[in-house]
Amino acid sequence: MKIMEFDRAPNPRRVRIFLFEKDIGIEYEQIDIAQFEHQKPGFTALNPLQRVPVLVLDDGSAISESLAICRYFEELQPAPALLGAGAMGKARTEMWQRRVELHLFFPVTQTFRHLHPAMKEREIPQVAAWGELNRPRALDMLSLLDKELAERPYIAGEDFSIADITALVAVDFMKPAKIERPDNLPNLDRWYDEVSARPSARA
Amino acid sequence: MKIMEFDRAPNPRRVRIFLFEKDIGIEYEQIDIAQFEHQKPGFTALNPLQRVPVLVLDDGSAISESLAICRYFEELQPAPALLGAGAMGKARTEMWQRRVELHLFFPVTQTFRHLHPAMKEREIPQVAAWGELNRPRALDMLSLLDKELAERPYIAGEDFSIADITALVAVDFMKPAKIERPDNLPNLDRWYDEVSARPSARA
Repeated sequence: MKIMEFDRAPNPRRVRIFLFEKDIGIEYEQIDIAQFEHQKPGFTALNPLQRVPVLVLDDGSAISESLAICRYFEELQPAPALLGAGAMGKARTEMWQRRVELHLFFPVTQTFRHLHPAMKEREIPQVAAWGELNRPRALDMLSLLDKELAERPYIAGEDFSIADITALVAVDFMKPAKIERPDNLPNLDRWYDEVSARPSARA
Repeated sequence: MKIMEFDRAPNPRRVRIFLFEKDIGIEYEQIDIAQFEHQKPGFTALNPLQRVPVLVLDDGSAISESLAICRYFEELQPAPALLGAGAMGKARTEMWQRRVELHLFFPVTQTFRHLHPAMKEREIPQVAAWGELNRPRALDMLSLLDKELAERPYIAGEDFSIADITALVAVDFMKPAKIERPDNLPNLDRWYDEVSARPSARA
């Protein structure tokens, strides 16, 4: 069993943090996206959509999509529950994971893809107006999270979860996306300092 | 318990089909997005992101995000399993649900939002170049699905699942998005005719 990934990309980091939190060790193999290795036939056979990460099982079957890989390991080893516990806990965690993904993680990555000069030859065509539209969306979501984090320690509730992982990776990816973190969000700051100090943040 | 939704929008339809397939009856309350009812304070208190559908429980707590609502009911009533069964089945179903959502459902809805004249006063600003970029992405994904559906009856495997629901809703939403379904995808046609004929398709 191994995970094929690219250690500088944000989605593989979500899976690495998730597995570190579960104390699951696994072999990681680098697919150099900068060298277009994800577009080669061997990798395309594993994921026709040519994206990392991909989990490859010993029987050769492959699972792509970060959240699907997380789901697989959550089912195999439920503790600690990172996708929520109980019907309501699972629903609330999925709600927050999706809110963070759709309204923070995606806007940050879209800003990067459609505005960063380094992406000019990769994101074809870059649509600058679309990139610009996403920056304020990311900032709006940070404000919303700041309000929510006044009420509870973690994004989805009392416990650290996949919603925190997606948010941490998104906030850190604001740096290459050139979105500055506002300095008037004290609850977000408190949360960020806490989740960043977890050993998994360096996974 | 009730679901607040808008019966002409694609996301609420995903939940309605899901609940029909599980034979779960529930009260639906219409929030008229055309009249901006989703932006009123009462609804915003339930979902600060001002989107439908929202599940409201008897204790007043609210779950938004279509997939989170589906997860809640899947946990309460696992059969028939629409989010997959077993670790590998759940992972594969989530993989395909996400592939369909990210590469078909979102491109179709982005095409609609950024190109349809009726959305001019709602999607501000409309970025036509972004809309145009999404049409070929949706068509590419249909071609990929056609190849996959040569191998198995449903998108995620042998059984009907949430991946089929998301894909059906996306394909039907191609009409308002003005994306024509290609006529050279026989496996997709076979699948579409089958899933459209299920009683849940009219939910």
